[in-house]
Amino acid sequence: MENIGILFANHPHRPPDPSLIATCVAACYECGSLLVACSDACLAEPRVAELVCCIRTSLDCADVCLATARVVSRLTEPSPMLLEVQLTACAEACRVCSEECDSYAAMFEHCRICAKACRACEQTCRALLHGASLT
Amino acid sequence: MENIGILFANHPHRPPDPSLIATCVAACYECGSLLVACSDACLAEPRVAELVCCIRTSLDCADVCLATARVVSRLTEPSPMLLEVQLTACAEACRVCSEECDSYAAMFEHCRICAKACRACEQTCRALLHGASLT
Amino acid sequence: MENIGILFANHPHRPPDPSLIATCVAACYECGSLLVACSDACLAEPRVAELVCCIRTSLDCADVCLATARVVSRLTEPSPMLLEVQLTACAEACRVCSEECDSYAAMFEHCRICAKACRACEQTCRALLHGASLT
Amino acid sequence: MENIGILFANHPHRPPDPSLIATCVAACYECGSLLVACSDACLAEPRVAELVCCIRTSLDCADVCLATARVVSRLTEPSPMLLEVQLTACAEACRVCSEECDSYAAMFEHCRICAKACRACEQTCRALLHGASLT
Repeated sequence: MENIGILFANHPHRPPDPSLIATCVAACYECGSLLVACSDACLAEPRVAELVCCIRTSLDCADVCLATARVVSRLTEPSPMLLEVQLTACAEACRVCSEECDSYAAMFEHCRICAKACRACEQTCRALLHGASLT
Repeated sequence: MENIGILFANHPHRPPDPSLIATCVAACYECGSLLVACSDACLAEPRVAELVCCIRTSLDCADVCLATARVVSRLTEPSPMLLEVQLTACAEACRVCSEECDSYAAMFEHCRICAKACRACEQTCRALLHGASLT
Repeated sequence: MENIGILFANHPHRPPDPSLIATCVAACYECGSLLVACSDACLAEPRVAELVCCIRTSLDCADVCLATARVVSRLTEPSPMLLEVQLTACAEACRVCSEECDSYAAMFEHCRICAKACRACEQTCRALLHGASLT
Repeated sequence: MENIGILFANHPHRPPDPSLIATCVAACYECGSLLVACSDACLAEPRVAELVCCIRTSLDCADVCLATARVVSRLTEPSPMLLEVQLTACAEACRVCSEECDSYAAMFEHCRICAKACRACEQTCRALLHGASLT
């Protein structure tokens, strides 16, 4: 999703490091999109009754990731406090969800892919939280 | 939006106080829906250039409120930590946005309505955060 | 959700009949919010394996209703064609979902509430499609 | 976003051609994410008053693309009718939005990037509509 980086570099409020924000936004969309698909794959498994917690956590984490992606994408007149709490929520949602998906990673490839995306998304959110762009 | 309260009361994991959660969910949807409409009304004002910060903050807060509504609506196998961080993010987004909308409340009725909805949503999120339902 | 009607009446592009649009927007949010909660209630039912189709259809219909609510809420420089196709999609999604939820209405109160909300939402979408506001 | 293709290939209801659906889902997320960022970039332009229609259309199209991405991602018990109307709505929204963004493509790189993404998304939606996967 490199186009988003080019777009940020051409934004009137070009950030000092467009790729730092682009990496986080791309990770949020990637994680959210995989979780929507994974929750549907879990729903189709014959053992769906055992996957209820995994489905529910994935639906929550998908909603949080996709809303965070939108918030982080906006560079105009940002509110550092709002950005900080939403990035914190997203990192925490991804941490919780990666642990849940990890429990099924050995059984289901779709859960393994999601656990990995959650960890990557958590890391990029924390990197942005601690990066220069929020100070 | 009283139907959501009846639905929670008929959920297999009926919460001790369905109306506490229903009030928060309804406030999140109400606030998010008003912010989507208000950001569009601001965009249509002849003085749009002065309202850029208000539009941007409203778009962010709408996304956060509508995602929070979805997360809080799920009563199955909840993750207290995920719920806590997202409610905190929503309360903070509403606080920031209510102050922004308040600046234009005397000028635009649509901003006055939104400022009020943001304060109500912030309060219900904090009430749920401090309520028994998360312990 | 009467505040949205007051907001539309105070929009710079005040529509001829603000309550017609407000009724549709409120029905889309109501239906979407109930479907998010109902899909979670279905997921918590001991017979979840029989409810897979109902859960999946509800998740789809919720996404379509909540996106349609946002689109219909914007009164500034509307695109009649875009509005028409999205209202058509929402009416059809609600028709499909009301039939699916109806199959479980006798068994689960949460499905009965959703089937009713889907029918109401379908009707308001069709009313707006055939109303004067799109011509 | 190739992980989504691998996930579809490992879904219990593996589609005959996972890459056809993955291409459409990826294009919907790509287009939606660029439109959220572009509407914010337009809002930051000194000539924002001339870009009101472009911002509004981009916000609508973003909402439609991101909802369509979720619907198309679900492979369990699909409703061909629901899928067809939502893909039609998305293709139409992208057509309208690509024309709007094209008007500013020579002036703003962010609009040029979005116009291109809208055309790509429209094409993948139409390809899926006419493909074997919906019959």
